[in-house]
Amino acid sequence: MKKVINLGIVGFGTVGSGVYNLVSRNSRTICAKTGIEIKVKTICDLDTTKVSAAVSGTAVTSRWQDITEDPEIDVVAELIGGISPAREIIRESMKHGKNVVTANKKLLAENGSEMLEMLADTGGSLGFEAAVCGGIPCIMVLNKGLAGNNIISITGILNGTTNYILSKMESRGLSFEQALADAQRLGFAEADPTFDVEGYDAGHKIAILAMLAYGRSIDFKTIPLEGITKISPLDISYAQDMGYTIKLLGIAKNINGKLDIRVHPTMIPKEHPLASVRNEFNSIMMDGDMIGPVVMNGRGAGSSATASAVVSDIVQLAGKPEFHPRFIGAAKLMSPEQRISRYYIRMLTEDSPGILSQISGTLGRHKISIASVIQKEVNAELVPLIIVTHEAKDSSMQKCVTEIEKFDFVKEHVTLIRVEDFKQQEKKQ
Amino acid sequence: MKKVINLGIVGFGTVGSGVYNLVSRNSRTICAKTGIEIKVKTICDLDTTKVSAAVSGTAVTSRWQDITEDPEIDVVAELIGGISPAREIIRESMKHGKNVVTANKKLLAENGSEMLEMLADTGGSLGFEAAVCGGIPCIMVLNKGLAGNNIISITGILNGTTNYILSKMESRGLSFEQALADAQRLGFAEADPTFDVEGYDAGHKIAILAMLAYGRSIDFKTIPLEGITKISPLDISYAQDMGYTIKLLGIAKNINGKLDIRVHPTMIPKEHPLASVRNEFNSIMMDGDMIGPVVMNGRGAGSSATASAVVSDIVQLAGKPEFHPRFIGAAKLMSPEQRISRYYIRMLTEDSPGILSQISGTLGRHKISIASVIQKEVNAELVPLIIVTHEAKDSSMQKCVTEIEKFDFVKEHVTLIRVEDFKQQEKKQ
Repeated sequence: MKKVINLGIVGFGTVGSGVYNLVSRNSRTICAKTGIEIKVKTICDLDTTKVSAAVSGTAVTSRWQDITEDPEIDVVAELIGGISPAREIIRESMKHGKNVVTANKKLLAENGSEMLEMLADTGGSLGFEAAVCGGIPCIMVLNKGLAGNNIISITGILNGTTNYILSKMESRGLSFEQALADAQRLGFAEADPTFDVEGYDAGHKIAILAMLAYGRSIDFKTIPLEGITKISPLDISYAQDMGYTIKLLGIAKNINGKLDIRVHPTMIPKEHPLASVRNEFNSIMMDGDMIGPVVMNGRGAGSSATASAVVSDIVQLAGKPEFHPRFIGAAKLMSPEQRISRYYIRMLTEDSPGILSQISGTLGRHKISIASVIQKEVNAELVPLIIVTHEAKDSSMQKCVTEIEKFDFVKEHVTLIRVEDFKQQEKKQ
Repeated sequence: MKKVINLGIVGFGTVGSGVYNLVSRNSRTICAKTGIEIKVKTICDLDTTKVSAAVSGTAVTSRWQDITEDPEIDVVAELIGGISPAREIIRESMKHGKNVVTANKKLLAENGSEMLEMLADTGGSLGFEAAVCGGIPCIMVLNKGLAGNNIISITGILNGTTNYILSKMESRGLSFEQALADAQRLGFAEADPTFDVEGYDAGHKIAILAMLAYGRSIDFKTIPLEGITKISPLDISYAQDMGYTIKLLGIAKNINGKLDIRVHPTMIPKEHPLASVRNEFNSIMMDGDMIGPVVMNGRGAGSSATASAVVSDIVQLAGKPEFHPRFIGAAKLMSPEQRISRYYIRMLTEDSPGILSQISGTLGRHKISIASVIQKEVNAELVPLIIVTHEAKDSSMQKCVTEIEKFDFVKEHVTLIRVEDFKQQEKKQ
């Protein structure tokens, strides 16, 4: 039942090696989920020594024609970037009847109409989810998920480098130069950061999104681009005072049939969903006339995240539009006793001495340790006592509550709410 | 070049009428974007009088067999909900070689394995994007966008009614009962709200998501469900004091091969992206091993949003996995002079009288009105002056800045940052 896809990878840099590693690692998962087995048949890179050292069971070449002309290869991943020879590689692949996936935003943004004409001429298919905010499947959502909508506007934090810099300027009061140096040290900014901080990268992305949303070719050179180099800590501090945060936004709006497309720093209200997107994360808000606003957040770049987008395209191009998970039996569920969480406990108690010691004693006997206690002074006979615990087993916590509710000095039922700090995700951020 | 899809709609309630209206309104857009023309051929509802009054050019029937047995119908939209006869309608449609789309979360969550076996038996295809958080294309993202990933966890605000109630309890200090009454008045809660407030609806959605993410069937009855009826304003206020907000979360985690699936109120940190999802909006965070966390927000229910998901499925089932927008010429761009925005202007001026009057005079001559001014007392010769304007034309603003920079008392360049309040989106929220 499984379908084998022979993949040729052109370009073994950050994204190309990411795709090879993802396929090596998750091949079984992909096959179980989609019925498609991806096999990397050939990798092309000018530095064949580097590639040969990193891979096994795969042909290695420095001639891209070895991939585009290979009749056994089904899909070509063009991952070298830039205009030429990327353009030629895509064209030749399509002429030879192959589908192509690419992460090449420059080519699509600056030569978009040419690419689309090529598609029409050759009848080929091009996947480019990886070209816009790698880790966010926004192309698919815009093209297919919102296919029934007229797109009113697209607004996005489309560049991770600038969002990282602005986040650090805000959270640590750094200057632009200090935050940039910090980003460079951590690999979130290039040695020459011009392309990111002057808004070109965000410009490429909003150009591609606008082209798809409005079905019109767009001359990239006409899009006004403004970067973040002039933003000072003073501006960020004033923005905060006024309830705003500063983000570099790419914006495309349809205003009575005319498109307003631009990239510039923008003050947005602190409560807005885009305002809570911090550090290197990206976010795209698409507003459709039927669906309303849809917001997607995720990691916009990086080897694994971008590789994930490339693989998503490969699976879709394989012509299995419908998903048939092969359900291999019932799920193994975790037993309730094993569930672990932090807890908020609220109880109403009499205001007399010794109560806290008895309650904390009960928790202690069940090996539940206390993170914080709140008991405010109030002029009433009954006072609320709030305890937040460290991680504890669900079953232990339930037993504790039963015991606590038996104390004479505890009135009403105890309220129990789980506390989730998303530590794992925060670490990743 | 266009492909015509004959659609049969079974059930003309909120979602069914929404699909009819969406197709009537946006048929041209859909065809331009996807090359697919959707024609509603027949609508089935027990109340044929109601349907006949609302539609034109479409056959109306009260027998669903008139749709499932019609050889001209390509796709059946099952939009009546519940277990029976929805199950029979889907089965018969597939037996007759039709593809099916549905918004039926109860059927998928409680009889998911049966449905999937039916797919395997008949070779049919079933689209159910509309079954989980209508306005958020999360099924497509989970199945296809994240196809290369092992899913570590899914965490979501999956029910709009409870999120609306919790949001109002927080923002206005209402009790659960008051907020529920408010939600009922505005149509965000049913007359009998049990299904939503006790967590069943969120439970159905997390069951479907977990089934897809982990490729295992799940016994819905084993999922622990806890609703929000016991949450008091006190808990919300204490949570706020501690830097948390309370959300009803559906959670599915893979912990060493065992699934932890549950629905309960949870305290989450205020800065977390899920915390800023308010009112009737939904949000889903999917964490993949390669892509990292991907968060999607949008309207989870409602006639138009759910119809948008149904249409997205129809387009995808039509077997055009690849998107070929037909680019009909270059985009008409808005001229820079027409662009309108609010502005933050920061300048460094001498600390002497009459300066504010000269600057506000300049703005006034260009018909730019001032929303707020900040000038703090500082012990220095030069002081920062901040002005935030109401909406103004880009060209007028640029002229103003040129004039302001010519004043002797203005030092350095003027900093100009656009201010976006997302009023349109806020109104919608």
